[in-house]
Amino acid sequence: MIELSENGSGFGNNSRFPYYYGPGGRLVLVDSALEAVNKGSTTIGIKTPAFALLSSHIKPTKPLVDPAEKIFTIDEHIGATGSGYIGDILQLIDEIQLAAQKHRLTYESPIDVHSLAKHLSSYLHNYTIYAVRPQAASIIITGKDQTGVQLYQVDPSGTFFRGAGFAIGQYSDIALDVIQKGYGADMSMEQAVQLSNKAIEKALGERPLVETGVVTAKDGSFKKLVNN
Amino acid sequence: MIELSENGSGFGNNSRFPYYYGPGGRLVLVDSALEAVNKGSTTIGIKTPAFALLSSHIKPTKPLVDPAEKIFTIDEHIGATGSGYIGDILQLIDEIQLAAQKHRLTYESPIDVHSLAKHLSSYLHNYTIYAVRPQAASIIITGKDQTGVQLYQVDPSGTFFRGAGFAIGQYSDIALDVIQKGYGADMSMEQAVQLSNKAIEKALGERPLVETGVVTAKDGSFKKLVNN
Amino acid sequence: MIELSENGSGFGNNSRFPYYYGPGGRLVLVDSALEAVNKGSTTIGIKTPAFALLSSHIKPTKPLVDPAEKIFTIDEHIGATGSGYIGDILQLIDEIQLAAQKHRLTYESPIDVHSLAKHLSSYLHNYTIYAVRPQAASIIITGKDQTGVQLYQVDPSGTFFRGAGFAIGQYSDIALDVIQKGYGADMSMEQAVQLSNKAIEKALGERPLVETGVVTAKDGSFKKLVNN
Amino acid sequence: MIELSENGSGFGNNSRFPYYYGPGGRLVLVDSALEAVNKGSTTIGIKTPAFALLSSHIKPTKPLVDPAEKIFTIDEHIGATGSGYIGDILQLIDEIQLAAQKHRLTYESPIDVHSLAKHLSSYLHNYTIYAVRPQAASIIITGKDQTGVQLYQVDPSGTFFRGAGFAIGQYSDIALDVIQKGYGADMSMEQAVQLSNKAIEKALGERPLVETGVVTAKDGSFKKLVNN
Amino acid sequence: MIELSENGSGFGNNSRFPYYYGPGGRLVLVDSALEAVNKGSTTIGIKTPAFALLSSHIKPTKPLVDPAEKIFTIDEHIGATGSGYIGDILQLIDEIQLAAQKHRLTYESPIDVHSLAKHLSSYLHNYTIYAVRPQAASIIITGKDQTGVQLYQVDPSGTFFRGAGFAIGQYSDIALDVIQKGYGADMSMEQAVQLSNKAIEKALGERPLVETGVVTAKDGSFKKLVNN
Amino acid sequence: MIELSENGSGFGNNSRFPYYYGPGGRLVLVDSALEAVNKGSTTIGIKTPAFALLSSHIKPTKPLVDPAEKIFTIDEHIGATGSGYIGDILQLIDEIQLAAQKHRLTYESPIDVHSLAKHLSSYLHNYTIYAVRPQAASIIITGKDQTGVQLYQVDPSGTFFRGAGFAIGQYSDIALDVIQKGYGADMSMEQAVQLSNKAIEKALGERPLVETGVVTAKDGSFKKLVNN
Amino acid sequence: MIELSENGSGFGNNSRFPYYYGPGGRLVLVDSALEAVNKGSTTIGIKTPAFALLSSHIKPTKPLVDPAEKIFTIDEHIGATGSGYIGDILQLIDEIQLAAQKHRLTYESPIDVHSLAKHLSSYLHNYTIYAVRPQAASIIITGKDQTGVQLYQVDPSGTFFRGAGFAIGQYSDIALDVIQKGYGADMSMEQAVQLSNKAIEKALGERPLVETGVVTAKDGSFKKLVNN
Repeated sequence: MIELSENGSGFGNNSRFPYYYGPGGRLVLVDSALEAVNKGSTTIGIKTPAFALLSSHIKPTKPLVDPAEKIFTIDEHIGATGSGYIGDILQLIDEIQLAAQKHRLTYESPIDVHSLAKHLSSYLHNYTIYAVRPQAASIIITGKDQTGVQLYQVDPSGTFFRGAGFAIGQYSDIALDVIQKGYGADMSMEQAVQLSNKAIEKALGERPLVETGVVTAKDGSFKKLVNN
Repeated sequence: MIELSENGSGFGNNSRFPYYYGPGGRLVLVDSALEAVNKGSTTIGIKTPAFALLSSHIKPTKPLVDPAEKIFTIDEHIGATGSGYIGDILQLIDEIQLAAQKHRLTYESPIDVHSLAKHLSSYLHNYTIYAVRPQAASIIITGKDQTGVQLYQVDPSGTFFRGAGFAIGQYSDIALDVIQKGYGADMSMEQAVQLSNKAIEKALGERPLVETGVVTAKDGSFKKLVNN
Repeated sequence: MIELSENGSGFGNNSRFPYYYGPGGRLVLVDSALEAVNKGSTTIGIKTPAFALLSSHIKPTKPLVDPAEKIFTIDEHIGATGSGYIGDILQLIDEIQLAAQKHRLTYESPIDVHSLAKHLSSYLHNYTIYAVRPQAASIIITGKDQTGVQLYQVDPSGTFFRGAGFAIGQYSDIALDVIQKGYGADMSMEQAVQLSNKAIEKALGERPLVETGVVTAKDGSFKKLVNN
Repeated sequence: MIELSENGSGFGNNSRFPYYYGPGGRLVLVDSALEAVNKGSTTIGIKTPAFALLSSHIKPTKPLVDPAEKIFTIDEHIGATGSGYIGDILQLIDEIQLAAQKHRLTYESPIDVHSLAKHLSSYLHNYTIYAVRPQAASIIITGKDQTGVQLYQVDPSGTFFRGAGFAIGQYSDIALDVIQKGYGADMSMEQAVQLSNKAIEKALGERPLVETGVVTAKDGSFKKLVNN
Repeated sequence: MIELSENGSGFGNNSRFPYYYGPGGRLVLVDSALEAVNKGSTTIGIKTPAFALLSSHIKPTKPLVDPAEKIFTIDEHIGATGSGYIGDILQLIDEIQLAAQKHRLTYESPIDVHSLAKHLSSYLHNYTIYAVRPQAASIIITGKDQTGVQLYQVDPSGTFFRGAGFAIGQYSDIALDVIQKGYGADMSMEQAVQLSNKAIEKALGERPLVETGVVTAKDGSFKKLVNN
Repeated sequence: MIELSENGSGFGNNSRFPYYYGPGGRLVLVDSALEAVNKGSTTIGIKTPAFALLSSHIKPTKPLVDPAEKIFTIDEHIGATGSGYIGDILQLIDEIQLAAQKHRLTYESPIDVHSLAKHLSSYLHNYTIYAVRPQAASIIITGKDQTGVQLYQVDPSGTFFRGAGFAIGQYSDIALDVIQKGYGADMSMEQAVQLSNKAIEKALGERPLVETGVVTAKDGSFKKLVNN
Repeated sequence: MIELSENGSGFGNNSRFPYYYGPGGRLVLVDSALEAVNKGSTTIGIKTPAFALLSSHIKPTKPLVDPAEKIFTIDEHIGATGSGYIGDILQLIDEIQLAAQKHRLTYESPIDVHSLAKHLSSYLHNYTIYAVRPQAASIIITGKDQTGVQLYQVDPSGTFFRGAGFAIGQYSDIALDVIQKGYGADMSMEQAVQLSNKAIEKALGERPLVETGVVTAKDGSFKKLVNN
């Protein structure tokens, strides 16, 4: 027997087609996407006025397999990293590389970091409206434009944040806690790299392999660091 | 055994595809969207003949993360704010910024506030008809046009209201109560800012961070206030 | 175990995709839309040979919120009102305003009331055939054309009626009863306004705020009355 | 536990998507549409070599509401009526009015009744193939063409019949019985009108209001009779 | 608790979307369509080298209703009949009439019977692949072309047969048995008509009304016989 | 009560929309299609360097019904046969006949057997990706091209095999066993025909009617043998 | 009664339409596709600076059936192999062959291995977003370009890896273990072939038939080895 209780209107109503909302108005598919992100590689972004740094834990792969690239150059002055399903991250990286290229072709000038983050936000949001799969990846974007060094985080729902310290992926709460406590706006890049490594190490309980990329206010071009 | 009671016609009939209506003719997806709005940032709009003010609680974010922008300039003479899912708010803000731009290009004159609210209403309504996701955001729009200073609230169902005092988001009923009791059409802008702050404070039970924007009948351009 | 009784053919067969019909061939989504209409503002149309009047209860809104407009000018000679979801009403009003405009452009003459009602009927009917949401609003249209003063009611199923007295929305049966008893073809407009007010008052059990609009055989243009 | 019995193949197989067929190969949505037709106004068509008559019971409407038109002129020489959902009837009437017009424009001659019935049949059949709603209306068409006076009934499945006496709608079996017993090919039109009235009266158990239209072999144009 | 037995892979796996196959790989919707055909009018096709005959039981209709046409002329040299839902039969007849016409226009020669049967087969097969309704009608086609007199049966699945004796519809197994026993390649047309009538009579247990059409090798044009 | 067990993730997850995969990653609709193929006519392909032979059991049809053609000429040098639903076989045969024709028109040379098998493979594979019905037919193709005599089997999943001996349809495992044991690359065509007949006879337990077609390395054109 | 536990939000919410995510944010359809891959032929890729080798177990087929080709030449300098559903592998091989061709036509130069792997990744990822079937095949690509000899593995989710040793398909963990232990960057090709054979033999517990292909840094063209 299927009984639907009188007070089932909150949940019961929402439990069928089209299935976008769950109890309390939660976006259930986006929540699932975020669950997947929370199992991704621990990934960090740190910004000071002088520079910004992206660092992502490289999960131990099988021997003879190169670790997957986690730090991506988007344009000369912009880099990005992400956490979540690798297939989804790759698609989003492609999307913003393309957007940066199109901007150069159309306006004959480099895209600013805010516009790129907003573009990605809008692109991700679109996947939450129709009966397709919201993308299971959060992306951290950094870059240097006329407003200085910028750091953004964009989530599967299309929400984006600007800030000086982000952590996404597995145990990111632990990693973020380390960064918040150790952060100083006057840190040297070396100190920031050490802070980032310490944060990922604390999160994972072991000294991990990481990939790192940086952009400085002075130089203005995004560069991947040689792995240590 | 599937039993459907004789009097199940109200609920039982509606409990399947396509799932737009619930018991009593409720729009169930829109109700879910409103549930989400009711968990958003407490957000306020106040209007007097001389000026209007938008103010939105900025939820405490993690350290090192800039609070998300909540007050948006739509056009020189129009501003807006919203409550609900940030991704949805951002998309709606984009939509009305674009509509305002198109109006300027087509008619070589600024759009009036009523037309913009109606455009947003129609845009939101469309999401309630098809098997897509109704947007989970209410928007408050203000501006100065040839009819004076105007203030509108537009809800996920496409319903819109004109008025002198609105509150949306978490505990908005408490906030609205404060505004209704303290409102005076001859308030100074300073008094209005204080009233708005008091309303959000009462709603949340603590002195919150807010972002505020204003437009005056005299000046006619929308400006964000420096956060206090 | 799924048991479907032998005589379950009426209900059981219809209880699955695509879900247009319920037991006894009822249009279940349209019934839900009508349920929503029956919870809308009590709204009235009265017609005599000399004039017609539209009157809609304005639900008490929160202080500082202007009551939503309920009486709409469609074209110089035509007005309309509605009951149901405000977002749906607004869309339907837009649709018939546009239809009236198009008629003027195409035929260089005002549209007659019957054609406009039929257009709305057909527009609403279309939403009952496909897997979209039938609109939850009934509309009353009045106007003066070459056939005199006309009054129509159009329902979510696309059904429309012509007549001299209509009531839709909450407790509309009580309001209609008052109108049927008090109606006279030789009433003055003042008497009609009083009858309409009395009908809404009886339905709601209190003296309500109403919005009213009229068109006369003599003048031929639709005008909103100043609220009393 | 969901158990599906071994012998469930007949029903069980059909009880899911896409849901066109029920047990025994019944077209379940069309059956629902027919159920709705069987609750419509009792409606009659009678044909003799000399003339044909359409008559439809006009359901008592509320006071001050004009009864809905039930007899429609399709073209100068053709008329139609229907039973079922009014919104569906109106759409089908529109469709055949348009088809008749198109025929005149394309061939510069009036459409014959058989072609029009076949067009409607094909139009209705189309709604039974796809995941849309089959129309809940049966239509009776009459007219005078080069083959004489013709009378057709078209059902929601697209089935159509030619004949001299039809009854559709509520208690149509009773009404049809009266017509079959009283019919004579040499009846006068007055006798046919009386027979039709008697049939509807017997079906409904009371003297009803009817709307009537006729076409004669002699005159050849369809005319609505003044209601008696 | 949902229990799906280990060996449930045959049924359980198939019991959900998209629902084309049932246990054992049965095409469930096509099976339903065939069930409906098996309730249609008993219909027969007989072919000898000299002629072919189509005959269909005309179900007793209500008095004053002309029996539906069951034997259709497709082209000068081709005729067809069918059993199943009348609306579906009519559509298929239309389709092959059109195909025959198109062939004449394109190739300036009459279509051969095999090509027409194959066209219908392919047309019906298409309805079994997508989420639409397979047509519930079997069609028997006969005609005279350069290969002599031909007789084909086409089923809802798109399967077609060539032969000298077919029976479809209600109790067609009984009717077919009579034909198989009484058939002779040297029968006269009169004998064939009598055999066909006897077959339908035996199937239905009473002397039925039938409609009959024939094509001869000599004459080569399809003609409907006057009902006896 | 619907309970979903903790360990239900393997099966439970897959048991809903979209329903392509079953437990263990099985393609459930394709499995159903294969089930249907396994109930089709026992059908055989044998190839030696000197010739290839296709042979298909012709299921006993009703008296007066010609057995359905089971061996098809695709192009002058290519033939094919199949097992499964006849409607599906016919469509696939049409598809490869068309592909062979197009090849001749485009390249002015006959298509090679491998390309044709691959085309069919790709055509069938496409039906396994979208929410349509995978075709329930396996096809055996043979032909002579510049690489000699070739024999291919293509299955509903789009998988194809090249070989010297295939059997599909009912009890094909028994038939294949007979062929594997009796096969010799130096067999004469007569011996191959006898082997094929013996295989089908063993599978079905009775001497069956078969249809047979051959292509030789010498002659190079596909020919149907006169039934024995 | 439908019971959904309070803490069912993770699973319960996701267990309905659209069904992309399972508990913990797993991509359930992709997981099913991977399950199918894990039942495919054991397949290996080994790369040293001097050469790369692809080797795939050829499942014992029936006698008289040629084993399916498992090593494919994509372009002169690139080869690929795969494991999973053969129909899916074939489609993906077609796709990258086409992509390599297009690259030559557009840029008049051979495609590099990384770009081709990325193209396949993006192509596969697309199948995970919409309501279609994710492809059940992992592909290993090797080739020689301006960056030397490269080896990539691409999975159904669109994830891709670069490395020196991969194993996919049945018992691939065992095979990979053998390769990891026996690998040396200075192996001769003969040693690599022996290592690969040993790995597949260990995985399957018997000496298997394999198909092998190689590309060398020196020669730069992909060649299939003669089966041993």
